[in-house]
Amino acid sequence: MTIHQAAIKISDSEHRARCEHLLRYATGEGHSGVVLFDNYYILYYTGFAFVPTERPMAFVMNSSGERALFVPRLELEHAQAKATIDRVDHYVEYPDNPHPMELLKKQLTSMGITGSIGADEDGYPWILGYRGPRLSELMGTIVANVRASIEDQMAIKSEAELALIRESVKWGHIAHTLLQRYTMVGATETEVSARATNEATRSMLDAIGPIYSPQSPFSEGASAGYRGQIGRNSAIPHSLSANITFQPGDVLVTGAGAPIWGYNSELERTMIMGAANDEQKRLFDHMVGLQNTALEAMRPGVSCSDVNSAVLSYFERNDLMKYWKHHSGHTIGLRYHEGPFLDSGDHTPLQPGMVFTVEPGLYVPGIGGFRHSDTVAVTEDGIEVMTYYPRDLVSLTLPV
Amino acid sequence: MTIHQAAIKISDSEHRARCEHLLRYATGEGHSGVVLFDNYYILYYTGFAFVPTERPMAFVMNSSGERALFVPRLELEHAQAKATIDRVDHYVEYPDNPHPMELLKKQLTSMGITGSIGADEDGYPWILGYRGPRLSELMGTIVANVRASIEDQMAIKSEAELALIRESVKWGHIAHTLLQRYTMVGATETEVSARATNEATRSMLDAIGPIYSPQSPFSEGASAGYRGQIGRNSAIPHSLSANITFQPGDVLVTGAGAPIWGYNSELERTMIMGAANDEQKRLFDHMVGLQNTALEAMRPGVSCSDVNSAVLSYFERNDLMKYWKHHSGHTIGLRYHEGPFLDSGDHTPLQPGMVFTVEPGLYVPGIGGFRHSDTVAVTEDGIEVMTYYPRDLVSLTLPV
Repeated sequence: MTIHQAAIKISDSEHRARCEHLLRYATGEGHSGVVLFDNYYILYYTGFAFVPTERPMAFVMNSSGERALFVPRLELEHAQAKATIDRVDHYVEYPDNPHPMELLKKQLTSMGITGSIGADEDGYPWILGYRGPRLSELMGTIVANVRASIEDQMAIKSEAELALIRESVKWGHIAHTLLQRYTMVGATETEVSARATNEATRSMLDAIGPIYSPQSPFSEGASAGYRGQIGRNSAIPHSLSANITFQPGDVLVTGAGAPIWGYNSELERTMIMGAANDEQKRLFDHMVGLQNTALEAMRPGVSCSDVNSAVLSYFERNDLMKYWKHHSGHTIGLRYHEGPFLDSGDHTPLQPGMVFTVEPGLYVPGIGGFRHSDTVAVTEDGIEVMTYYPRDLVSLTLPV
Repeated sequence: MTIHQAAIKISDSEHRARCEHLLRYATGEGHSGVVLFDNYYILYYTGFAFVPTERPMAFVMNSSGERALFVPRLELEHAQAKATIDRVDHYVEYPDNPHPMELLKKQLTSMGITGSIGADEDGYPWILGYRGPRLSELMGTIVANVRASIEDQMAIKSEAELALIRESVKWGHIAHTLLQRYTMVGATETEVSARATNEATRSMLDAIGPIYSPQSPFSEGASAGYRGQIGRNSAIPHSLSANITFQPGDVLVTGAGAPIWGYNSELERTMIMGAANDEQKRLFDHMVGLQNTALEAMRPGVSCSDVNSAVLSYFERNDLMKYWKHHSGHTIGLRYHEGPFLDSGDHTPLQPGMVFTVEPGLYVPGIGGFRHSDTVAVTEDGIEVMTYYPRDLVSLTLPV
């Protein structure tokens, strides 16, 4: 008898299969190996989550499929304990002497990676004070950009990934429920966001704490907030928080989610402080109409740009283009934004396993912003709307 | 009579002076202009804080000193409302058709930037699904890396920057005070962190809410937590949170801070759950000895590597090298890590206005990690220890 332990994670075998997919691409291109510096790519292929700093780290794979991590001393045990890999090499510290990249060169050489290399960047990016050579200079070889292939691979989610995103939706939902409950005239954005975030995270941990790992460098639980999209400021779609006090008549745009083993979902709603006036109601209804138009256009084989065109037709038919500010959605996964995009310039066909946000918005100066965002998976024969928070005006009108 | 309004921010005139400094460097190198894509650099030179996404943004300056932002439609009002700049150009959307970079090319050309360009990257980085051309390909010109000059400039903080970091210290202090108060046997990491973070943020907003802006894409208030550095896991210096339950005898390593108009401070403490045993006490005392050694070595003109050497001598004298994992500190400012570093490979002399974390650590398998981190400014004649949280074992022993 085999006993399977309950788990909310990506399995080792799935990580290995991901690596094999990348290896087939890289060897097909004639590369002697692959070097990846991006922390999300490293998480995707190895399950190793870390906080990126000035200390360079890399995932390395040679043409035989040997998988290695390159880390500073600081991360050695962390890497050894968590990664699905064959080998961990480490350097002492950054900047140090010799420069860590000299040791990466030794690692690559010892793994037989001496010809052309497929990489996400030509060297570790100069973040947080890091300075160092290009990989091509260091190795004296050609470094080809393999990001497009990786992004294409990451865009198609497996059943396990879809399950993590569905789990994320649940805890984003409770955070949003509490956000709506605690939002009232006179309260401030930050206190309401913090209370909802705090209580949702406690509930989440009470429910799934023993099997939960955020695997995220920036968040440790469920969260919900406004990012300053309150009242007239809600007409600025990617505002930052500014601790605004809620007032009667405000149009609010929310956001909620939770990283689950690194995977994200997105839930955003437009809410009104008190009964909507006629213009607010007209704009709210059109926003829902725009979102319905996108949802109805989505199915496997339809292109991203066709979905966006359907939305733009609705904008034009209803004389709303003056309120348009952005495309209809993006994909989501380990990162809160990924490609492809529901955009006029993106002709990628929708495929089963892609997970999109669907979020056309209306932004009206002096009145506010109107946007719902739902998380939607493409299935074999249509779509699955993964989020299930109410979208109607009655449910989203707050008492004043 | 002039009435100055209370403010916690960087002034417009300081942003202009920063731009002029960069301009002198770039024109001195013969560049026809500067293009910066990094959101921290854009915040540093313009005061414009934003959430980086797949939609490329840039700060552009020509050799006449004209300052421009390049943004998507989505960010237009946000950029116009907040930036200290002469001109905002925008494109419709990413990916769109034509590609946004074609419009950046038009902007650069119209500003007379047709010769060599000083840039932080050769094109917008491929984050969050973005794909696009190199800047050098796009413009058919040489693109030189100006990051080193920018990093050198950012390393020397002004009086206004020091004031923001001192303000950050205060609110990190209250978050840490609450974290220590609420940490008890049987509680979990996440609930204690969330409660301390929530209450500290409310207190901060009660005190400075009307003049507070985080200017940070990732945090909206004060925070404190453990990042999983609890019990034996505290021996992993950059662990991630894992919702561990506190147990008697645990060695804990904390972290607290608050973004103030983008600026960060760092406060970390080692705490023990219950009376320290002899070995815990011995290691704690050595950790404080290591930190004192670094503080005593720091003054203007001394090199970063010399400070680290003094620390390494203490390690060696006391047979502690087996517990060493990282250098003695890093600088801090708009980013939570910056260069230069208190590292053997960094020979930069300490200069007035540099702000370092001082945080040598001991990591002992099976026992735990021991690290305090304080935020320390270099002054004309010595140092200012900006953090003032108790460092002694009695103060950091928790009741069990």
